[in-house]
Order: sequence, then structure tokens, then C-alpha cells
Amino acid sequence: MSGNTFGEFFRLTTFGESHGPALGAVLDGVPPNLELSAAEIQRELDRRRPGQSALTTPRREPDQVEILSGVFAGRTTGTPLALLIRNTDQRSRDYGELATVFRPGHADYGYFRKYGIRDYRGGGRSSGRETAARVAGGAVARKVLQPFGIQITAGTVAVGEVRARQFLAATIEDNPVRCPDPGAAAAMAEVIESARKATDSVGGLVECRITGVPPGWGEPVFDKLDALLAHAMLSLGGVKGIEFGDGFTVAARRGSENNDPFGPEGPMTNHAGGILGGIATGAQIVFRIAVKPTPSIAQPQTTVDEQGAPRRIVIHGRHDPCLCPRLVPVVEAMAALVLADLCCRQRALTGDAR
Amino acid sequence: MSGNTFGEFFRLTTFGESHGPALGAVLDGVPPNLELSAAEIQRELDRRRPGQSALTTPRREPDQVEILSGVFAGRTTGTPLALLIRNTDQRSRDYGELATVFRPGHADYGYFRKYGIRDYRGGGRSSGRETAARVAGGAVARKVLQPFGIQITAGTVAVGEVRARQFLAATIEDNPVRCPDPGAAAAMAEVIESARKATDSVGGLVECRITGVPPGWGEPVFDKLDALLAHAMLSLGGVKGIEFGDGFTVAARRGSENNDPFGPEGPMTNHAGGILGGIATGAQIVFRIAVKPTPSIAQPQTTVDEQGAPRRIVIHGRHDPCLCPRLVPVVEAMAALVLADLCCRQRALTGDAR
Amino acid sequence: MSGNTFGEFFRLTTFGESHGPALGAVLDGVPPNLELSAAEIQRELDRRRPGQSALTTPRREPDQVEILSGVFAGRTTGTPLALLIRNTDQRSRDYGELATVFRPGHADYGYFRKYGIRDYRGGGRSSGRETAARVAGGAVARKVLQPFGIQITAGTVAVGEVRARQFLAATIEDNPVRCPDPGAAAAMAEVIESARKATDSVGGLVECRITGVPPGWGEPVFDKLDALLAHAMLSLGGVKGIEFGDGFTVAARRGSENNDPFGPEGPMTNHAGGILGGIATGAQIVFRIAVKPTPSIAQPQTTVDEQGAPRRIVIHGRHDPCLCPRLVPVVEAMAALVLADLCCRQRALTGDAR
Amino acid sequence: MSGNTFGEFFRLTTFGESHGPALGAVLDGVPPNLELSAAEIQRELDRRRPGQSALTTPRREPDQVEILSGVFAGRTTGTPLALLIRNTDQRSRDYGELATVFRPGHADYGYFRKYGIRDYRGGGRSSGRETAARVAGGAVARKVLQPFGIQITAGTVAVGEVRARQFLAATIEDNPVRCPDPGAAAAMAEVIESARKATDSVGGLVECRITGVPPGWGEPVFDKLDALLAHAMLSLGGVKGIEFGDGFTVAARRGSENNDPFGPEGPMTNHAGGILGGIATGAQIVFRIAVKPTPSIAQPQTTVDEQGAPRRIVIHGRHDPCLCPRLVPVVEAMAALVLADLCCRQRALTGDAR
Repeated sequence: MSGNTFGEFFRLTTFGESHGPALGAVLDGVPPNLELSAAEIQRELDRRRPGQSALTTPRREPDQVEILSGVFAGRTTGTPLALLIRNTDQRSRDYGELATVFRPGHADYGYFRKYGIRDYRGGGRSSGRETAARVAGGAVARKVLQPFGIQITAGTVAVGEVRARQFLAATIEDNPVRCPDPGAAAAMAEVIESARKATDSVGGLVECRITGVPPGWGEPVFDKLDALLAHAMLSLGGVKGIEFGDGFTVAARRGSENNDPFGPEGPMTNHAGGILGGIATGAQIVFRIAVKPTPSIAQPQTTVDEQGAPRRIVIHGRHDPCLCPRLVPVVEAMAALVLADLCCRQRALTGDAR
Repeated sequence: MSGNTFGEFFRLTTFGESHGPALGAVLDGVPPNLELSAAEIQRELDRRRPGQSALTTPRREPDQVEILSGVFAGRTTGTPLALLIRNTDQRSRDYGELATVFRPGHADYGYFRKYGIRDYRGGGRSSGRETAARVAGGAVARKVLQPFGIQITAGTVAVGEVRARQFLAATIEDNPVRCPDPGAAAAMAEVIESARKATDSVGGLVECRITGVPPGWGEPVFDKLDALLAHAMLSLGGVKGIEFGDGFTVAARRGSENNDPFGPEGPMTNHAGGILGGIATGAQIVFRIAVKPTPSIAQPQTTVDEQGAPRRIVIHGRHDPCLCPRLVPVVEAMAALVLADLCCRQRALTGDAR
Repeated sequence: MSGNTFGEFFRLTTFGESHGPALGAVLDGVPPNLELSAAEIQRELDRRRPGQSALTTPRREPDQVEILSGVFAGRTTGTPLALLIRNTDQRSRDYGELATVFRPGHADYGYFRKYGIRDYRGGGRSSGRETAARVAGGAVARKVLQPFGIQITAGTVAVGEVRARQFLAATIEDNPVRCPDPGAAAAMAEVIESARKATDSVGGLVECRITGVPPGWGEPVFDKLDALLAHAMLSLGGVKGIEFGDGFTVAARRGSENNDPFGPEGPMTNHAGGILGGIATGAQIVFRIAVKPTPSIAQPQTTVDEQGAPRRIVIHGRHDPCLCPRLVPVVEAMAALVLADLCCRQRALTGDAR
Repeated sequence: MSGNTFGEFFRLTTFGESHGPALGAVLDGVPPNLELSAAEIQRELDRRRPGQSALTTPRREPDQVEILSGVFAGRTTGTPLALLIRNTDQRSRDYGELATVFRPGHADYGYFRKYGIRDYRGGGRSSGRETAARVAGGAVARKVLQPFGIQITAGTVAVGEVRARQFLAATIEDNPVRCPDPGAAAAMAEVIESARKATDSVGGLVECRITGVPPGWGEPVFDKLDALLAHAMLSLGGVKGIEFGDGFTVAARRGSENNDPFGPEGPMTNHAGGILGGIATGAQIVFRIAVKPTPSIAQPQTTVDEQGAPRRIVIHGRHDPCLCPRLVPVVEAMAALVLADLCCRQRALTGDAR
């Protein structure tokens, strides 16, 4: 109800502020008897962690996960999994003007208007750091999906004006942009680097492809598979849009071009991006999200303080000049959470999710 | 859980198949003491009803609403509002091949794979007719928003390649396309007409603008205002994408261009579309959705039957050649439902939604 | 959230006031491909209907159910089942003082304080008539439980000071009290009859026994099987208490007497009433509820009006002098709803509810 | 859905096993700007902690709480409050036969049948230790209720055959039984002591009284205030029944005796226990729960192992010979959680909970 829980049956609740004692997650509805170790979760967290390359913030956040409950003798027990990530750098600091001034492009203003109080240290609850808890949860969701052979792969397909021309999943982790087109990766890295040098930031696109989802997953009407994925992706800070399959281009198209004919194996083309009427068809699920340029930039910006008085602000600190590379594992995690939940819901309805 | 309910506190549940006895909705969490008549709800239903113009299906569906509960002496009582819309045309008909063949671009295939059974008459539960129940619910949601002065206006801003160049809200209901640019409306109508003549259909874009939302509405993290609006819009059949504010264009932009500076009255520009960190800033909320061309077209298409055997199909019947004009009131209704729910949730948290 | 929905996955929402146009229910999460007819639901409704014997109110309410959605060709489709029961006797009547005066023992006072408005006609939403919608929903829940061989049987085990000394399930429908002890049934009927003649009413106990629940059903911690049954039963108007197994007597007992030893088939005794730690053990589930005497009595009572001014009131009309006989099918329905939901939840978790 | 979350808006999720690394709770929906310190929560935890007197287990569990999130500068921020309680005694131990044998009267058997796996160390998730997380959550709920002047007081009103004859709230913490009748407290302590000496245990009754709840709180139909309290109390291990107001005695009463007449200040008597039609009337809320004797006793008991083979078991370790004294603060905590949630729900509906 207050928006810190995601999912109906397989359900993630996250907590924590970026500069409080800890971040964490409680996962409920985890099927019992799944083999699970902290190392598996850590592997996904390490993909999201800052400081992996010259393109990301050099902040040092080890993001070490501890499993507090729900696992016994290496297996899930069916009880809630609590995952804890301590914040290591909590020393009292001078937040200076950030304590009273709203950063443009940030949630500060809204939080203050909503609650009348805000934890201004590093963004508090609205910090991108909160997504570490999602990635931890997503790692468990992947375990639920594993027996179905579901593969979820996201990559950065645009940075500024540079676009990927192919989606070679296997190459994504080979470059720091996490671009699935090795030919475009270097150019993207340059765009990011040049934004950083200009004390600026740059936006991009992330695409996600999912194979192996059994036809039939997804709920009709309000909880369509695409509606849930859209909900999941727009819940990520900085995401300004989503499109499925051929996306916005279908607006200019005719039905005779856009319909995917069916063959014995399912859809023979995939304009729809693997979802019809909100339900998986078995074809590859494809969506793209629009990611805005990081709002924290070390340039003077116009703003106001809590009393509404005009102020100029320069945001110091080390921020990612482009959100996309580190968003890739988060997008995958959110997709996994959506699918694990729908798997359980399908099972509840018919007793069988295949 | 099975996806027929929308909202957490102000909560709409819809039921009904297009060719069953009736459609309907139950609205729970409706504040007491709101003046409400069936006529107010009917007014919105009439905007969605087919047969309003030459551009929409000539099917005759009066969509007459009856209030079954929750209103006493012209006022809501705080108990659930049940709204009933009888289907008038339920005579037993020959559905011919539709009973066993999957229509390309439709939910038929997914429903069959999901449930192992489907009501094939006119799309059953996946029919666009289901949105009548949402429009009825949205009419009540508007009553909740009225005291805040919230205005929700949607319009068709593109059909095929034709784009609106301005958004004159007051002109929308003056043309059958529901286009907010009187200069573009005629060209759009022609594109629709020409698609129809070619036994084809055409896609488009619908834009929605909302003013008057108090800063602070929206929940952080998973239930961000934009995440809920995306969920709501992608739950509409035929919608393939959504973008907020400057949308996909931000992917190519720098942070220094994209951030909205704050002034004493809130954001001074509105690239963000009225939402930051998932919370309303008080600026106009703006989003656009991509609408695919109607999949039901009277041309031969390739498909399979329930046994997977190849078939050719021609879908007869009277369908809208473009979904946008009739989607406009549905988009508004869904936006109203999202906001009414967030209003109650804000009230629950702090006792005051202003 | 507003308390008109019961269940998490298999979920009943009811609507309607006793003197409004209709009562009804929407059931979501109904598994597809269950054979279902209106007649099956009607059979349960007929058990609850007034006027079945001299012991119940002679009001005539046919309570004819119509299935509006979710069934196609005699089978459930997995989409929401909407059930409608028209109120037949809605003629405008003079409610006289009931319009402004609070009936002792009734919800009138609380509703007025809660909502600031109330539908005073016959109790409105708080009328016992609302349970007709529950019985309709419970009839569908039974269909979900049928394959497991689950049997749910309730009976009146006390009226006033008269207590049943045995529980012969097969005899319950043979007497108008629905008492499982044929030897006590006549004495109970007399107590009811004598209360009626004294323009008074009398309380009683209803016991429910359930066999065939697979061990393992029920959720630990907050949604224990007994917690959900208690929630369900206390949600019935007039119920003032519930106890499981040996119930309140265990307060005076020692652990060595009260523990049920386990044998190869499960518990060898059943002090616990079939539930341990909130989870079904496979033993018979047993609980009893305390039912207060009907508050509507045709004797002068002291009360106040909406302005707080003292008033005397005599409630006319035809009311059941004892709630128990007609509560029996409602108790069974609520128990069935609890179990059908837990069945789906168990399936969601492990894929198998057996 | 999996039963580890309680409440709709003000919502507690607990996690943790008795011998895992930690127990904890996440509270969502906490209103912002409440003053809150760990010390206030600790105070309630200390009331539940073992080893307070000779009547409780001498186990040493400091139950030190840490606030991980949701509080900034001594005030709640509106974001989730995560509360952590480390288990101090996790050394690897020989659980001997407990690893494979089901303890009579315990959840072991059900958990094993439900999940196919169980954390057998000290009861795992089904341990009474889990209630520490509830008490921590309840301490926050009390902060929400404070401005309304709501007082929640529970006490042990029976142990074995000894009954309290008065309810002197102020005396409860003066005796180790937490009995509100100083005259009965010593006799109760003797009954507990004598059970312990006999390597046995004994049951009892706990009564809870609540004043200051504004009339109107509670949801009609399924989420009646008494239904939610019953749900809350039956979710506590060892509770076998609940009754409100005059409870089970009303079964033998006539309506003319049982109805509470209304006066200008509300009900003039209180047979109903402060709730009518599921909604608070403003009168004192009164309920009693039946608590079974502790199932862990150091006497040989008959049971089976995981393969169903007969076994004899003697449960060693230090257990409370009577659950009531330490249950008292847990009962209060659960009542506070119910009321804090209903407060928010009332506010959501009408904007004002008074």
C-alpha cells in the first residue's frame, strides 16, 4: 500500500536509505527446497555495484549480502528470506546545502511535499542504491525460473545518439557499457566519457529480451504481463518510457502489417514482442526503456530551498554519467520478479505453470 | 491476484464477457457522501459507446448502466458500488471458425494456453467491451478528484503518419477522432477512412494531460505515480508503449538540458512530465501511449486452430478501424482511477491529501 | 481494504444492501474447467433462504441467483464469476423512526459514526441478507474442494441452555434447528418457539466439522488456518466468539493431558481440532462459534436518535428468533471459502496441494 | 499471501527463525514525523523477553533491537521501518532426535507436510520467538494510536482453575503472572510452579481491554474489528479461542437481556464488548483468549519420525510452564497493530479518523 512491496504471491519488500545503517529486502512466497547460497545473490549484486569500470561512479560500496532467514542447510524453507546489505560509509558528513535545497531532476521536492520530512543524505530512500535490494531479490526469482529454462538478458542499446545495430547477448558483459553490439560499444563509451568531462550526463535506452516463458503466463485485464513489466520498469528511477515489441512504431502501421500470423509453434513473426492480450505467447518477449540522463551534475543549477527561496546549487560527489550500464542487471532483476510472481499465480490457478 | 482488480484502497473489480449476460464493476473504497447519479456515469459511458461517428464501429451497444448498490438518496454510502451493464445482443449465433481458430493479434491464443478453455464469442473477457466497466468506475473516481480541481484530458495526437501539432483541450470533442489539433483532425479522419476502405486498420498515439494534482501524490519505490499510470495504460488492449514528459527523446539528451530547474512555484520547465522520483511535483502530468492498429481486419490471415493445424481466417463483423478515438475516454478513466487511489493512500498516511 | 473482499487468491467480493436493487458477489481466482451451474449455487442459497420452517422468519425472499459471467458452456473459464441476486421487495416503505433512531445491538450506530450517512432500510449493508452473497460464493468454493474429498458440515449444537450431546451429521437437515443430535432438536425448537412467543430471541452455538483437508494446508505466522477461520466466522454478524478443538477448556488443562500424540497416520487424539501451528494436520477440523440472540425484538427498548436525544423503540417486522439454523449454511460457506483460498495458495507455493 | 504480513495499510512483515542469524520486521505505512527511538521499542521487547521471573524460562535472549531504516533525526520519515533483532545463541548444537521427530502439540508435523523441509532448530519459524518481531512492530503502532488516547491493557485472568475476579490494570506489572487481580496472582503463580515441578505445563486465559477507540473504526462485512482482532489473536501460537464482551455466555441468553441500550454517550451497558456490526461503538473493547498449556514438556511422549516410525520423545530445554505471562505484551502488540491499520483505513476513506 505504501509502495515498498512488489508482487502478489512471490513478493519483494525493500527497505533502507542510502546513508542509513542498511538496505535490505524481505522475499515472501519463495518456494521451498530451492538450493540457494549468498554467493549466488552476491554475483548479481556485484554486477550492479559501482566502481566496475571507468564509466561508472568510483564510489566504493561493497554491497555484501547476508541471508538472515529462510534458508536452512543450503535450501529455501518456504519461509521469508530476509537479505541484509549494510551501508559501509555512514560517517557523519556535512551535507551542506543539500539538507535544505531541492536538487533538480530528483525526488527531493516530492518527498518533502509528501511527507513534510526527508532524509536528505544521498537521496535517502529515493537513491538508486535502493535497487541493490531489488537485484538481491531478483537473484532469488531467477532460481524460481531456472527449471523453466527462462533466460532474461538486458543490454544498453543506445547512449545519446549512438544506437546498437544488433543484440549479441553473449557480448554484453564484455564491454563496460553493457552494449550488445560490440561495434557500437566503444562509441557509446566515448559519449559517456565526453559527458563526464563536461561535468554533464547523458541518457540512453536499455532493451530486455526474455526467452522460455511458457505460453499462458500473465493475467488478463489489469495484470497483463506487459502491464506488470511496465509497472516494474517505470518503478526504476530515471526511466521515462517503455515499449514492447515494435513499440511506438506501430502507431504508424496498418493492421495487416502488424498482426503476427500464427503457425503450429505459435506466432510466426514477433511485432508484438511475445505478448498478446497481456498473456505470453511463447515468442521472445522484447521491451525497451528510455533512461534519462543522470540528474546529479556538477554544474550550477537553479533551484529553491524548503522555504521556496531561489538558490543556485552545484552537486558534488561521484555520480554515474550514464545510468544505463548499471541499470542493466536491475532491469533483469525486475523482469525476473515479475515472472516468478506470475509463475506462482499460474500455479495457484491451474496447479501447473507449464 | 487474478488480475481483475485495480487499485489498493479505491479499488475497481470488473467482470463480464462481451457476449455473456452482462459486464460490470464493483468499486470499493468509495468515500461516503459524494453526490452521484447513474446519469453522471452514463455520460462517460456514452463517450466510449460505439456508433458515435462514421469512424467507429456501427455496432449498437447502448451500454446502459444500473447502480446496484452503494448509493442511497443520491449519495454514496461508503459501501461498495456495483455497476451493471447488460449486454443486449446475446442471441445465439454461429461463431463458425472463431470457435476453434486463433485470431492473429488477439488474446485468443494466450487464453487457450492459459486456461485450456475460452469463451470465443466476440473475444469474451479480452474484448475491448470490458473497458466499459472501467469507464463506469472512472466516472466515480472523477467525483473523488473533483474537490481538488484535478482535470484529466486525453486526445488522439497521431493516426498513422499524421501528427497533432497542438493540444487544444477544448476542441477534442468537436471532431470524431478526438484530436486536440483541429487542423490535423480531418487528415487523421481520412487516414482512418482509407484504412477502413482497404479492409484494414491503423494505429495511433493518445496523449493525456492532467492538471491540479497536489505535489506529493504518488508512492515512492514500487508504486511511483508513473509506474501506476504505466500499469494502468498497458492494461488496455492494443497499447504497446508509454512515455512521460519528453519521453524517449531524453535518451539522447544531456542532464544539463533535461533537468527542470525549480522556482518558488515548483518546476519551471516540464521535461519530466510532472513526476519526479515517482511523486507528483504539481506540474502538469503528461504522457503518451502507442496504440496498435486494430487486429480484427476483414482480410485473409494465416493462423492455426486449437490442434495447431494451419488455417486461413477472415474476420467479419464491424470493428473500429482505429482504436484511438474510443480509447480516449478509457485512458482518462484509468488515469482517474490511479489518482483517486493515490488520493486515498496519501490520506491514509498523513490524514491530508492536499 | 474497505473490507468487502475475502481471500487472497480465491477471492470473494460482495456488494449490496438489503433493500437496494440487488445483492451480489464477484469471485476471482476461480480455477478454469470446473463444471458449474446456477442450480448448484441455488441449492445452497435455498438452505439459507428465510421461510423454510416455522422457526425462521416468514419473510419471502426467493434469492434467485443469476450467473453473469465466468461460465461458458457449463464450465468455469478462469475469469471472474459474477453472481446476482435481485431484491424482490423494494417498494418504497415508511421506515418511520428507524430512519433516525439506532437499534440496540445493531450496526446502525457504528455505521452512522463511521460514514456520516447510512442506508437505514432493513439494515442496509449490515443486514444478514448480505450473507446470501457469501453462500453463493461458498457454493463455488466447494467445487474447488470436491476433488480433495473435503467435507464441511455445520450444525446447531446449543440453543439457550439446551445442548446437543452428539454430532450426527446425517441428521442435521432433518430438523428445522439443524441440530446434529435428534434427541435435542425438539427441545431446542421449543426454546426458540417460546422466545418468539415472548417477543424475544435466543442465542446458541454452531459447530463445524471438516474432514479431508490435506495435511500442510494453512499458512504459518499470520495466516494460520485457525486465524483465517476465526476471521471468517467473526465476520458474521452476531458471532461473539470461536474456539477450536477443545477450545476454552484447555485453559484449565496441563500439557501432558492436552498434547495429541502422533501415530503413523497423524495425530492419535484430537484435542487440537485438526490444526497445529496454524497448519492442518489431517485430523478432523473442529470449531464452535457463539451466536448472540437476534437483536431485533418487538419489545420496547431504550435508545437515542441521530442527535443523541433519548428515544424508545419497538422493532416490528419478521425476524428470526434464533440466528443459528440459518447461519449453518453460511458457516459452511465461509469455511469453504477459507479452504479454497488456502488450496490455491498451497498450489502457488509448491505446485501441488495434496 | 504466504502469511508473513499483517495489516493492509499499516503493515507488518516479520521474518526469521529462532536459531537463524536474526529475527526482524519491516513496517510499512508508518506515518511520517512521529518521534521514535529504539529505546521505546526496546521497552516493549523487554516485557516479552524471557528470564524476567522465576515463572518464565531462564533462557537468556537479550532481544536487542536495531532500527535499520525509516527514522531520521529521531522521527519517522514515512518510509519502511526495518527492525532487526540478532539471535545471540546460534552455536551449532546437537538437536539429536528433534531433527527427525515431530514434537506433539507443535507445528513440526504440519511444516514438514507443507514444505517437505523444516528448520528443526528450536521450532524455526514456528517458534514463539517470532513474536518478538510483532512486539517491536506493536510498539510503533502504539505511537500511531497515542494522539487518540487509546489505551490497550492485557492481563492473565486465569491459570488452570484459578480465575481473576477483578481487572485492576495498574497492578498487572506488579506480579510475575501479569494478573490484574492481586488476590489471585499468588495462587496462579503456585499453579504454574507446581506444573513446572511436575515437568508439566498449564493453560490459562488472557483478557485485553481497550479504551479510547473512536466510534466508527472497523470495516463492515469481512474486516469487522472483531474479525481482525480474532485473526490477530488466533495467529499467536497456542491460542485456541477468542470471545468478545460477554462471549460464549450469550449463547444461553435472550435478546432482551443481551442488547445494550443506547444513551447520549453511546451504549449504556457493554455486553457487546465495544463492537457492533464490526464497528467500534466507543465503549470499552473487551476480549479474552484461551491459551493452551505449553506443548514442550520434559515427559516421555509418543510420536513418530519423518518416516512415520513410532518413537518416544522427551523434550529437554527450558520452556515457559505457562505461556500467559509472556503472551500479555504480545496480545497488546497485535491489538495495537489492528487498530493502527484501521486508523489509516478510516483516514483513507473519509480523511479523518476521529
